Order: sequence, then C-alpha cells, then structure tokens
Amino acid sequence: MWNLNIESEWEWIEMLKVDLNSDLGESFGHYSIGNDAEIINLVTSVNIACGFHAGDPDVMAQTVKKAETAGIGIGAHPGYSDLQGFGRRRMNMSLIEVQHMITYQVGALEAFTKTKKLHHVKPHGALYNAAAQDHELALAVCRGIQAVDSELPLYGLANSELINAAKEVGIPYVQEVFGDRNYEADGTLVSRARPNAVITDPTTIAQRVVKMIEDQTVTAVSGQKVALKPDSVCVHGDNQAALAIVKTLRTALKEDGIKTETW
Amino acid sequence: MWNLNIESEWEWIEMLKVDLNSDLGESFGHYSIGNDAEIINLVTSVNIACGFHAGDPDVMAQTVKKAETAGIGIGAHPGYSDLQGFGRRRMNMSLIEVQHMITYQVGALEAFTKTKKLHHVKPHGALYNAAAQDHELALAVCRGIQAVDSELPLYGLANSELINAAKEVGIPYVQEVFGDRNYEADGTLVSRARPNAVITDPTTIAQRVVKMIEDQTVTAVSGQKVALKPDSVCVHGDNQAALAIVKTLRTALKEDGIKTETW
Amino acid sequence: MWNLNIESEWEWIEMLKVDLNSDLGESFGHYSIGNDAEIINLVTSVNIACGFHAGDPDVMAQTVKKAETAGIGIGAHPGYSDLQGFGRRRMNMSLIEVQHMITYQVGALEAFTKTKKLHHVKPHGALYNAAAQDHELALAVCRGIQAVDSELPLYGLANSELINAAKEVGIPYVQEVFGDRNYEADGTLVSRARPNAVITDPTTIAQRVVKMIEDQTVTAVSGQKVALKPDSVCVHGDNQAALAIVKTLRTALKEDGIKTETW
Amino acid sequence: MWNLNIESEWEWIEMLKVDLNSDLGESFGHYSIGNDAEIINLVTSVNIACGFHAGDPDVMAQTVKKAETAGIGIGAHPGYSDLQGFGRRRMNMSLIEVQHMITYQVGALEAFTKTKKLHHVKPHGALYNAAAQDHELALAVCRGIQAVDSELPLYGLANSELINAAKEVGIPYVQEVFGDRNYEADGTLVSRARPNAVITDPTTIAQRVVKMIEDQTVTAVSGQKVALKPDSVCVHGDNQAALAIVKTLRTALKEDGIKTETW
Repeated sequence: MWNLNIESEWEWIEMLKVDLNSDLGESFGHYSIGNDAEIINLVTSVNIACGFHAGDPDVMAQTVKKAETAGIGIGAHPGYSDLQGFGRRRMNMSLIEVQHMITYQVGALEAFTKTKKLHHVKPHGALYNAAAQDHELALAVCRGIQAVDSELPLYGLANSELINAAKEVGIPYVQEVFGDRNYEADGTLVSRARPNAVITDPTTIAQRVVKMIEDQTVTAVSGQKVALKPDSVCVHGDNQAALAIVKTLRTALKEDGIKTETW
Repeated sequence: MWNLNIESEWEWIEMLKVDLNSDLGESFGHYSIGNDAEIINLVTSVNIACGFHAGDPDVMAQTVKKAETAGIGIGAHPGYSDLQGFGRRRMNMSLIEVQHMITYQVGALEAFTKTKKLHHVKPHGALYNAAAQDHELALAVCRGIQAVDSELPLYGLANSELINAAKEVGIPYVQEVFGDRNYEADGTLVSRARPNAVITDPTTIAQRVVKMIEDQTVTAVSGQKVALKPDSVCVHGDNQAALAIVKTLRTALKEDGIKTETW
Repeated sequence: MWNLNIESEWEWIEMLKVDLNSDLGESFGHYSIGNDAEIINLVTSVNIACGFHAGDPDVMAQTVKKAETAGIGIGAHPGYSDLQGFGRRRMNMSLIEVQHMITYQVGALEAFTKTKKLHHVKPHGALYNAAAQDHELALAVCRGIQAVDSELPLYGLANSELINAAKEVGIPYVQEVFGDRNYEADGTLVSRARPNAVITDPTTIAQRVVKMIEDQTVTAVSGQKVALKPDSVCVHGDNQAALAIVKTLRTALKEDGIKTETW
Repeated sequence: MWNLNIESEWEWIEMLKVDLNSDLGESFGHYSIGNDAEIINLVTSVNIACGFHAGDPDVMAQTVKKAETAGIGIGAHPGYSDLQGFGRRRMNMSLIEVQHMITYQVGALEAFTKTKKLHHVKPHGALYNAAAQDHELALAVCRGIQAVDSELPLYGLANSELINAAKEVGIPYVQEVFGDRNYEADGTLVSRARPNAVITDPTTIAQRVVKMIEDQTVTAVSGQKVALKPDSVCVHGDNQAALAIVKTLRTALKEDGIKTETW
C-alpha cells in the first residue's frame, strides 16, 4: 500500500495479504438491490453509495451501521448525479464540479459513521472508468477527497491515472485489481465491448487473483506480463453466482496462506 | 445562549449582544438568487443551503469560502428534498427519514469547511415551521444533528418545540427571533395567511428587536407580553428593501450599545 | 360507469362485468420491481407510473408497448414528485401545482401510446388517498386530466371526493373498489394504521368482490352495509401471494358469470 | 422550409421571410430567469423548456399560455435530465434512452397546449450540439419526435446531422442559423472555446442575417462562402443586450422587406 518503507516491504514478503472490497448500499427508497447481508461477511472493506447514483440517507445510515457491526473498512462510493443511469453514463462535468461533487458525497457518508472517519473513497462506475484514463479528472477526484480529509485513501485501478493523481495530490492510495476482468498489455482493463472482457469461472478467477498477489503481475490477453500491485480485489454480491466467486476466492486465498485484511 | 451559568448571565447584563443570521447560498446551477455578497457583511452568522431545497456542491463550496473569509459563523440550512418547492412545501416523511436527511445534509456542508466543524444548524422553510410545532419532528431534527456532532448547536424559533427538543436530546441551542414578524400570545408567529403577519417598516422592526433584546419580551398582537430569549435575529438579503432593514437594525443596535456577535 | 343511461343499466343487470386494474411500470433505471409480465395477463386495465414517483421514459415506453400487445386499457398513474418516497408521502403542494403536475405526467405517458389516447388516469399513492378525502385537491386532479383530454376517465375510490370532483368538473369516472381492504361505515377504507385494514385470504377477497358486484354494497367493519358501485377492482402483482389472489378472484368471477372487461 | 416544391421556391424569391425563434420558460420553481415577457413579442416562435434541464409544470403551463396569447409557434425544447448543468453537459446516454427522453418531454409540453399540437421541437444545449454532429444521436432525437407526431418539425442547425437525420427519418425540418456566431468553412459553428466564436455587435449581426437570407450563404471565418438555408434565426432574451440585438435585427429585416413569420 501507500507509504511503504523498506521494513514494511520486507514484512510484505513474510505475510501476503489482500483486501477484498465490494459495493454496498445501492438500494434506493422503495427499490432494493444487492445481497448486502451476505457479501458483507465475505469482504474486508465496502464502498457505500452516497445518494447520487444510488443509495439514500436511510440506506446509507443502515449500511454504515451494518459495516460497523461487521468491523470492516467503510468507504464512500461517490458517483455522477444520475440515478436513472446508476452512475454508469459519463457526464461532461467541469473539473471543479467533479471536485465539489466528491467532497459533498464523501462528507455526507462520513456523517453517518460513529468515528467521523472513513476508511477510503472509491469513485463509482463511469466516473471511476473515466478518471482511470483522464489525469485531470483523476486530479479533481483526488482533490475532492483531500478537501475532506488529506489522510483518506483513494481506491483506484492499479497503474491508472487515479493512482498517478493520488501520488501527485499527495493522498494515500490503494491499488485495485479485478480477478474477473482481462487486462490489456498496457495494464488497462479489456473493454466490456469486447467478448473476452469478463471472466466468469470461479476457479479461474481465484487462481488469477492468487497469482497476481504472489507474482505482482497479471498476464494480459496478449500474453505479456503486466506488473501490478494488488492491494485490493474488487468483488461483487449482485447474485448467487457472484457470491460463489467470492467464496471460491476466499478458499483459494486461505489455502495459499494469503490473509484477507483491509489496510 | 445555552449552558448559561450565573457568571455569564451577569456578563449578559453588562454587555448586551445579539447574533444576526441570514440564509445564504440559495443559488442552484445556472440559477442565481440572493444578494450574498452584500448580506454577508451585515450578519454574524449564515445558514447555507445544503443541496436539497436549494444550493448545489459548487454553490456550497463558494459560499463556505466567502463566509470563512468574512469570519462569520457557518451554519448548515437543511431542508426537504424539494427544489421545485424551495423546501417550502411540507412533506409527510417518517421521523427516521427526517433524522437521516438532516445528518446527510449537515455532513455534506461540513465537508466544505476548513475546520470540519460547523457553527450551527438551522432547519429550513417548511421543516423549520413544522418542527417548531411538532415535538416528535423536532426531536428527529435534533437527533440528525447530534449524529454528526453532539456539540453542534441548533438554531430554532424561541420558545418552540425545536428548543424543547434540543434540551431533551441534549444538544446546544440558540433561540431565534424575528423582528419582521408579529407574535401570537402563545409565542408562535402570526401565520403568513393573516394580514398582520409581516412587519415591513425598517424603523419599527429595528425598535422591536432592540426592545426584545433589552426587555427579553415581545408584545403579541393581543397586547400581551411574551417572554423570549433573543439569542439570534433572522434577517434577509433577498432584495434592497431587505438589506435596508438590516442596515437600519444594525444602526439601532449600535446606538443602544448592543453588540452584534455570534455565539 | 359514467354516463349510464337506461339501456345500459338494463344491460348491466343482464351481464355483470368488472374491470380489474393494476399498477405497472414501477421499475426505474437499474431498479426493477413488480411482476409486470405475469400481472399484465390477469387484468383488463393498467395504471402506468409516469416518472415522478416511479418509472422512467424507458420503462414507460416498454410498459405501454406490453399493454398494447396485451390489448388492455392503458392508464396514466401520476404521483407526487418523490421517487425516494415512492409517491407515498403527502406533499403540501398548491392546487394549481397539483393540476399542472397531473397534466405533465398524463401528457408524457400519452406520448408513448400508438393512438395518442389513454384509457384512464388513476392518481397514485398519497395523492390518491389525499384527494379521495379532500374535495379541492380532487378538483385539481380532475382539472389536470381535463386539460389533456376532457373525455379521459378518472379512476377513483368509489363514493369518494375523487368521484364527486369528476362529476363537478365534468370528466368521466370509474368507481374503484378494493377486495383486500376493509371499509368503514362511511365508505372510506379502514386506515392501514389499524390492524384490520387489510384482508389477505384469497378466497375471502374473491367472495367479497363477487358480493360487491352482485349486491352493489360492501359490509363495513361496523356490520353496516355501504352502497357502492364496483366498476373496477384494484389488484396487485407485487409478489406471488398477490398474483395468487388475482387468480383466485378471476376464477370466482368466472364461476359467477361475471365478465372481466374494461370500460 | 421542408417539402418546398417549385411553386413555393418561386414564391420564396417574391417574398423573403424568416422565422425568429427564442428559448423560453427556463425558470424553475423559486428561480426566475430570462425576459420572457419582452422577448415573446419580438419572435415568431418559441422553444419551451420541458422540465428536464429547466422549466417545471407550472412554468410550462404559464409559458404556453403566454405564447398562445401572443399567437406564435410553440415548440418543445427537450434537453438532458440535468437541471444543475442546465442541459449543457453532455451525458453518455444510449440512443434508445435519448429517443424515449425526447418523446417524454415533447408529450409533456404538448399536454399544456390548447390544440394538443406543437409547432416544432428543438433539442436544447449539449443535446443540440452533440446531435448536430452525431448522426446516430440525431436519428434518436428525430425518432423521439416522430413517435409523438410524425408531422412535427425539427428545428436543427442548418446543414447539420440533425437535418440529415430528419430527412432520413422522414419528419419535417426547419434549418436554423445563428447571426451571432461565426461559421467554419464546413458549415459548423466556430467552437465557443475559440475567441472569435461569438459576434456581439447588433448591426453586424443584423447585416449577417439579412445577407444569409438574401444570398442563402454565410461567409466562414476562412473567407469561404458556405451555402445554407436560413429558415429560422435563433435569438436570445437573456438580458438587455440580447434584446437590443433582436430589435436591431427586426428593424434591418423590415428595411430589407424580409417578413418575420413562422412556418
């Protein structure tokens, strides 16, 4: 993770560990989605929607409480103000608008925590994807986080502009990897528009993640090895198949002596 | 103000003072309203809209910055989620929904401040009026504030259920009075549906406020004297007439040796 | 139904019939609710959400198409602009605001139909309940409908202010009854706050509806008979239990020779 | 305009005419913008916001009534669902989402008219600009209009993809020109990011428009002549300077015997 010095790198080799994060609290008013009650027990940190692309003040309050009870890392999951599009449609906002939108959502979620301190912030959906590739947009996201708490870590795609921006702005960061997605040789994810974008077999996913953690590389679709730092693995709880993947992954990690633990 | 002990009451007599508060940051996106730049220099604390009934993250960021520069008390001004109605239409929300809605908005505004600490919270419009008369609703408002910061004061109508609820919940409170409104014998404001609800003459308003502060009473429309504690006076900056009232009031306060100062 | 003349009343006795209506198209963006595909085949008319309390332009387009394919009556189901509260929280809107809100939503839904003609309008949730008791509010609803199409029928609670308002404004109306709700002696529904508000046994519900249609009365909780005109029965498709009720009801109607047919 | 045959082209030469259109009804709830009362008397058709990027049901009702009284062409002005961004931020919606969004807004506005027939539809802001360049997006806009009324004309940038799409879909169209904007040699508008994008001198603007109408060309910034068909000129009523431009333009048109008249 961030600010690793020589000693902690050594420790890293001694005891491999990884954070499992999942999106939570995506219900809204009368509308209920996700298996929050199940996935919450399988992960070490959660990204809670903040009322713009999903979630509402009631869902946020309940979800924070559940995560506090589970004792896992509570992260804000800010997204575009687009409930109809679930934050998955890119909006051409100005950089300062993005920055303030992040500050607003992070502050709103933090208010529901007992400690008034969040564990991390992970941008959602189209904002995450756009900022992973757009350095200026990524800076706006990081400045929005920094305005709330300069020690609050960003979760961002490993090797992406989100990580570069966090370094530049000076906030901590956690590099996120995806076990169920194929990678390009440049370290970006294969576009969902391509047929080989997503991996669905639980065992394959589990093996990929274990390999990423042990080798700190991933094999791209081109066959090339891409160096990456798998601080946290993104997992899903949308349906039973998704939950099965997480369970298989947890078993594989345990068998290989990799601890699941948040930062 | 709250938690007055013998010493401070004595001091009170020695040096009369009052807070002047005004609503600010009510613009939204392309829509601009209010004379924020003028009124900000005439008051000692401001109530900033939090994006539900008015305001947006950009307006909030700019307004907080202006208030910090002016060195005045920065309060959150949460309201119903009803931009079209400007928070002036009562909504039949459950008590827990109100509580969470308050926590959300207060947290969002606080995130924009440098100190991550607000000066106060004043509910807006229909929520303010409803909670002033409905004890359960007022408790929900106070609990929403308390969840963010148990030392964060509520601004509420003097003698109203908002003040009673703050006492019961155990958060600080500031009793608010209105120089431009007539009072009923029970201490409530004369309904705006009545012709004598509002006072418009600047001199009359100024004299009423000075009298309230010096006598700690107000004369109701029935002629009866109502005891009240004028910790803060609500003033407006909507138009030139409103600004003229504030200027007249400030002159009158100065002439009577009453300091304008926030809590 | 409306405008019954002697001939049609006679026909009424000859051949009993009833409309079964259900709310449809209540999904929104990423959020999916209801068993639209199942309930649509069990009813003779549907009330489609118009994007304020539920539904969005995509859901509306799809739902209208499905209803057109099924050949059933397509009604608009306008509600308060409150997605979080699903239109179930009363909002203190002015009468003219309600009227315009109805016109807007009815026009928006009508635009998706092939014929540019709706079958009816049924207000939703808190608006339905409030207007059933508040004559002025009911007039506003009816005027909002009339502005779009003066021949467009209102669905309203039998004997309620909605029906009175439709008569006064001069638009057609359909009197709606509830098989799964108990009635007070004055013809209003027993409040959901009361333990005996809702009836859940399918057979009891079916028998009640058949009796209402054949006797044109319902027995109130007090034991008194209340005269009512069961033009349409409101049924639900929220879950399997609700669907079972509709199936039982349809069987009972068929056995008693009561035709299910819309107006 | 559309569907011109030989006879009408001949008539064209005999009697030059042009439509002046302006955006109207952009206020929202408590927020008031624009000089609707003044501009409405200077134009021959108006584009009325439909509640997504601006406007609300009350503003729509009032604006339609004013336009009906003025006897001018009433057009719908649908935009992205983004009140904060005033519809000026492009959103990455799917084509079918855009189509349905247009149908919804057009239907909603139409419902407020006496005749239940609109004069035209002009997409707003970022949607207008994006569709002027993106043929697929322009098709989606046209199909959204066609779904409501296949004889309802589109107002689109002269020579743009909006016009091409209207031809392809088979709906009528009106080619719009801008007197206050410079053109590129390919007939597109010079980007607002460039210093010479906008022309502000009323006389220059008036002369440009007269020349466009008489010559059916515009001189691009490169000096090249671009053929274009100025069916309608977009004018603004945002402030006194904008109103002065319209007045100067009207005088110039009159002096040159060009009639202002809608289609």
